[in-house]
Amino acid sequence: MTEDSQNKKDLAHARTKTSFDVNDMTDYLYGGRANVEHRRYIVGLLAKEPVFNKDDWGWLNHTDAVKRGIAMSARLAEIKMEYELNDLDFATMIEAVDDPIPLLLHNGAFIPVINSQGTDEQIEKWIPPAEQYQIIGCYAQTELGHGSNLSGLETTATFVRETDEWEIDSTTFTAAKWWIGGLGAICTHAVVQAKLIIDGKDYGAHVFVVPIRSLEDHKPFPGIEVGDIGPKAYGGFNKMENGFARFKKYRIPRENMLMRFSKVSRDGVYTKPPHAKLSYGSMVLLRSVLIRQMGQYLSRATTVATRYLTIRRQFNNPTQRNDADLNPGLETQVINYPMVQNRLFPMIAQAYALFAAGTVMMNMYINLMTGLTKGNIDALAEVHAMSSALKSYCTTIGAGGTEECRKLMGGHGYSYFSGLAHLFAAIVPSNTYEGDNYVLTQQMARYLLKEIKIARADPEKVTPYSKYLLPALNRDHFARSTCSVTKLEDWLRPEIQLAAFEHRCARLAMELSDAVEAGGGLDSSIGKAWSDHNIECYRISHAHAQYVMALWFMQSIQEAEHPTEDEDRGAKPESVAVLKTLSNLHALHTIQTNLADFAEDAYLSPVQCQLLRAQVKILVASLADDAVGLVDAFDHPDFLLNSALGANDGDAYRRLWDKAQTEPLNRQEVCEGYEEYIRPLLKKHGELKL
Amino acid sequence: MTEDSQNKKDLAHARTKTSFDVNDMTDYLYGGRANVEHRRYIVGLLAKEPVFNKDDWGWLNHTDAVKRGIAMSARLAEIKMEYELNDLDFATMIEAVDDPIPLLLHNGAFIPVINSQGTDEQIEKWIPPAEQYQIIGCYAQTELGHGSNLSGLETTATFVRETDEWEIDSTTFTAAKWWIGGLGAICTHAVVQAKLIIDGKDYGAHVFVVPIRSLEDHKPFPGIEVGDIGPKAYGGFNKMENGFARFKKYRIPRENMLMRFSKVSRDGVYTKPPHAKLSYGSMVLLRSVLIRQMGQYLSRATTVATRYLTIRRQFNNPTQRNDADLNPGLETQVINYPMVQNRLFPMIAQAYALFAAGTVMMNMYINLMTGLTKGNIDALAEVHAMSSALKSYCTTIGAGGTEECRKLMGGHGYSYFSGLAHLFAAIVPSNTYEGDNYVLTQQMARYLLKEIKIARADPEKVTPYSKYLLPALNRDHFARSTCSVTKLEDWLRPEIQLAAFEHRCARLAMELSDAVEAGGGLDSSIGKAWSDHNIECYRISHAHAQYVMALWFMQSIQEAEHPTEDEDRGAKPESVAVLKTLSNLHALHTIQTNLADFAEDAYLSPVQCQLLRAQVKILVASLADDAVGLVDAFDHPDFLLNSALGANDGDAYRRLWDKAQTEPLNRQEVCEGYEEYIRPLLKKHGELKL
Repeated sequence: MTEDSQNKKDLAHARTKTSFDVNDMTDYLYGGRANVEHRRYIVGLLAKEPVFNKDDWGWLNHTDAVKRGIAMSARLAEIKMEYELNDLDFATMIEAVDDPIPLLLHNGAFIPVINSQGTDEQIEKWIPPAEQYQIIGCYAQTELGHGSNLSGLETTATFVRETDEWEIDSTTFTAAKWWIGGLGAICTHAVVQAKLIIDGKDYGAHVFVVPIRSLEDHKPFPGIEVGDIGPKAYGGFNKMENGFARFKKYRIPRENMLMRFSKVSRDGVYTKPPHAKLSYGSMVLLRSVLIRQMGQYLSRATTVATRYLTIRRQFNNPTQRNDADLNPGLETQVINYPMVQNRLFPMIAQAYALFAAGTVMMNMYINLMTGLTKGNIDALAEVHAMSSALKSYCTTIGAGGTEECRKLMGGHGYSYFSGLAHLFAAIVPSNTYEGDNYVLTQQMARYLLKEIKIARADPEKVTPYSKYLLPALNRDHFARSTCSVTKLEDWLRPEIQLAAFEHRCARLAMELSDAVEAGGGLDSSIGKAWSDHNIECYRISHAHAQYVMALWFMQSIQEAEHPTEDEDRGAKPESVAVLKTLSNLHALHTIQTNLADFAEDAYLSPVQCQLLRAQVKILVASLADDAVGLVDAFDHPDFLLNSALGANDGDAYRRLWDKAQTEPLNRQEVCEGYEEYIRPLLKKHGELKL
Repeated sequence: MTEDSQNKKDLAHARTKTSFDVNDMTDYLYGGRANVEHRRYIVGLLAKEPVFNKDDWGWLNHTDAVKRGIAMSARLAEIKMEYELNDLDFATMIEAVDDPIPLLLHNGAFIPVINSQGTDEQIEKWIPPAEQYQIIGCYAQTELGHGSNLSGLETTATFVRETDEWEIDSTTFTAAKWWIGGLGAICTHAVVQAKLIIDGKDYGAHVFVVPIRSLEDHKPFPGIEVGDIGPKAYGGFNKMENGFARFKKYRIPRENMLMRFSKVSRDGVYTKPPHAKLSYGSMVLLRSVLIRQMGQYLSRATTVATRYLTIRRQFNNPTQRNDADLNPGLETQVINYPMVQNRLFPMIAQAYALFAAGTVMMNMYINLMTGLTKGNIDALAEVHAMSSALKSYCTTIGAGGTEECRKLMGGHGYSYFSGLAHLFAAIVPSNTYEGDNYVLTQQMARYLLKEIKIARADPEKVTPYSKYLLPALNRDHFARSTCSVTKLEDWLRPEIQLAAFEHRCARLAMELSDAVEAGGGLDSSIGKAWSDHNIECYRISHAHAQYVMALWFMQSIQEAEHPTEDEDRGAKPESVAVLKTLSNLHALHTIQTNLADFAEDAYLSPVQCQLLRAQVKILVASLADDAVGLVDAFDHPDFLLNSALGANDGDAYRRLWDKAQTEPLNRQEVCEGYEEYIRPLLKKHGELKL
């Protein structure tokens, strides 16, 4: 078993080259040692419980997987209570569970929605039993025929004055609630979005707490048709019982409508909310959580790929980092090929940038909510737009990057045991849920159009992240502006990188603004022609997201280099040096990937484009010795990675072999189906003598 | 059930707008009515057999799926014999089966390899029983530790002079054959790649016919450890028993080595093949088949997406094609959003271009083989390079496009019932098998570097597809050359489109050539620095593939407009008109997607870039009325599509609903796991009174 130990030796040897203290880097990523230790503690709680073992996941069909998901849900709830864990801990547990389970939306949506939209009395009534899992809830918005368009929903809640009740009804089957996680099997209650109808008048979608299954025997109540919608793409969400429900004149008490903002009195008088967008907070939260998760996911995927590609050897195709002199007779380590490095290392940089972005975005959310409770809605528009733009961009690169890491690993990447297949399957729906990644980009575009109007009226009032619009107001000057790079090293200056991002954002925003105005202005364009600008919305929204990602990553490194408030946020000089390389690579690779946007208006000259490509190659090559250390710093234990190819000890071939031996088909010497199908075929034309 | 019929009405109404004869277009795609009818006949043979029914696929785990795959394999073999079908028909059957099955490589590799590399006597011995399925074979090259690098293989075949045998051996477990389709359960024989050793001398990899399982009882022979490698990513290849095998001093007769080209005599004298690359033919075939398949796959994916997006309605967000006046109260059809059209329609154009490319590439292969049998190897280098470049590019857009179609369908696209999940899962490994899509691009790059040398020595000798290199030899003139577009319509001129593709290919090829020469020339760069150019290899190879795809699609339309030889290849004027729009969109969208390559050297001016983007939008919009007709023309029956969302009648919601009712979890009113897990949790803190 010489090759076995060669795998381990290769990974161990790669670690000796790391130029920085891996623990120090981990502290930077998680915001201090205490956070690192706490995350390990939470993950460790699950790792030791048999119900969370992942060894047989590859063989579970949907029926078996849901049963497992139910078992995991119950144990997760018990652990949360047993160890008195909070909501943040719950998020870490969900990460460690490593696949969506039926309980996910109970803590992730049911409780938060009641907390934010219920009255104090309603919170008092529903939250304590929900926190103790005496009831289990889900969140029911999407319908078979309708998605994120609330006003298109068909389910109705009609006020029945006589009995002081709501009659919930789905007349057509396209009104069936659909895709609802937790609804298929485990929930007892649902928060249901339904059109509120009083005396024939439609007041639009509102939320109602609806009992679904009896607390006695878990049977669905009469008037509710409920079930599981079936398996999902790629085996994703396999343990989740995404469900459907149809209501047939199903009655609930009037007070089951969540009435913090909108209210309906005993005599059927409707009171509308003080501000139309007060309920946006929970959408911002869900998106902010997603941005944070993408850092987790992409860091896992790059960890697996980096480790495996370090031990995988293929071809004797010499590279500048060939170790053939050290290891005569061995093939070249795949990670030494520049093509592989140029695909992989920018994703490691992206994962680091996503960690930074997740932290900033979560802080923006917290500040927003602090303001909202004081009645201050100033930040709402910007945070809403920013979270939309970042959700769209980050989930795109998160899912795409995970699949790219899988493909980077070549043939074995296609094995379920790579550990990246179930990850991608679970991530990729994030591109279409919580606002489709294309549709969502309209939010940032609309916001920027308003900022342009503000900029023209009063430049001082433009928010910091939109200040790039100001130079573009001087059209002639802006049209002549070009990048100031003259030599290779210029591309390493953060101010030059940011200037390029800002110029691109400003140009795209102004072009959109011009096009909209040519169509009759923003307000009319929300009418007839707005959808004709959606391609441009997508471009400017992703451009803006890339700009703030680059900016926030730089700022996070500055903070690590010169911690102002919290010493825990500081990092050692060796870590800062590598982080700056990552930041440069992240910024320049993002520009290179979207080069047309920077070059098509001649902001970049042909020579500057060449220098950019050359600088990206140099930066990539300079990370070769640190790649393994950089992914080790993400601190993902083997339990979490669940990968034969990316385990910490590098023993990939041994693990692939051992995993194959557990394949149930291998329990029999001759396959099932031989006697019935194969033997008759082989013998159809008589016995063969060879 | 009003919405139900609205779905059907919407799709039926869309069909009334089609500007061309759909049957005529289908004839163009398949090369005449006879081919269309024959394809329908073959698919129909399978559609009526219960074993090929796909209704329960979403719930099969790997164990059950392999058993199904075995049953399907046996029936497929019987049908092939019963109806006396040929190899082309077998390919159509595999397409109709719709998921890789264990028998795939018997007809797809085992038989072709023996036919091409066996002597007449060997063909006589093995092929008749193989054709009658008295033996079932597979093709064993890849090993646990080694992939496409033949010289890295560890399995050995050592000549045993005393007994006139080969001793097949895998000393280390990394030498285990791995990923071998058909090996895990059904095969009786394998064609094995192993290093040929005589008297301690290694002659490199050669192929041997190796008996694996007894024809008596199907038990593996002593000395062979064989089994299934376990499940694959995304549930792909689930019905295939990709297997492993280790040989322990396993003996086979000397004549089991395939000896058409290399030979070993009774006394152990080795004779090498007359030409080192004579065995490349089968690689070219496998790649050419893949290019053809990508047309099938992407056409299926666009069919499903186009139909579903026609019936799906979301938001009352008016578009220029809003039908709110016809259908007051209904939301907007999703396919009417320009953003959706701009993502979807270029993929329909790509699918058409892939049909054309598949035909041309297959003809190139046939001509090559005709030449080879006459000892003419002139075309080998070009066809090998071309098939490599196209395999890399086409499988990239085939798999990526299928996933993009799935995402275009939003939430419901993530349902297994979309029909695109199992498709992507089956396609995506094509990006890494038969030559990794990145590694493979070196072939085209090497070929072009040689063509540059030829161009310098004797411009007349450059092959037609490399003629674009000639203008680039005049460096000063070439550096100043720019695109001649001055107005929007100029972009519709094929010669302008081709000139842009040619300029880009020539520039990238010359830059690569310069870089290689700066590193000491091609021959030395194959040594130390070649891998440093692999990023550039990838760029030029994909650029070349895009160029010939655009060119071949144009030529195929010319042929349809003015059929020279075969009247069956002709198409009606209305069809030709739409095809030209598709060709324009395909070419211009490809340029737009890769715009940096065309703009970064200032070949395109800022204004030309703007005109390009504007023209793409116009072309996309002009296809709106024809989209459904264009995908109907692919002629994929519901049996093949296996999609609740993309069925021919448009009744998507009804089918999704009906499919969900078949979910096994829904057979019980209360979920399994309630008593064991959920009830104890709910009651942990006592009975709740709400």
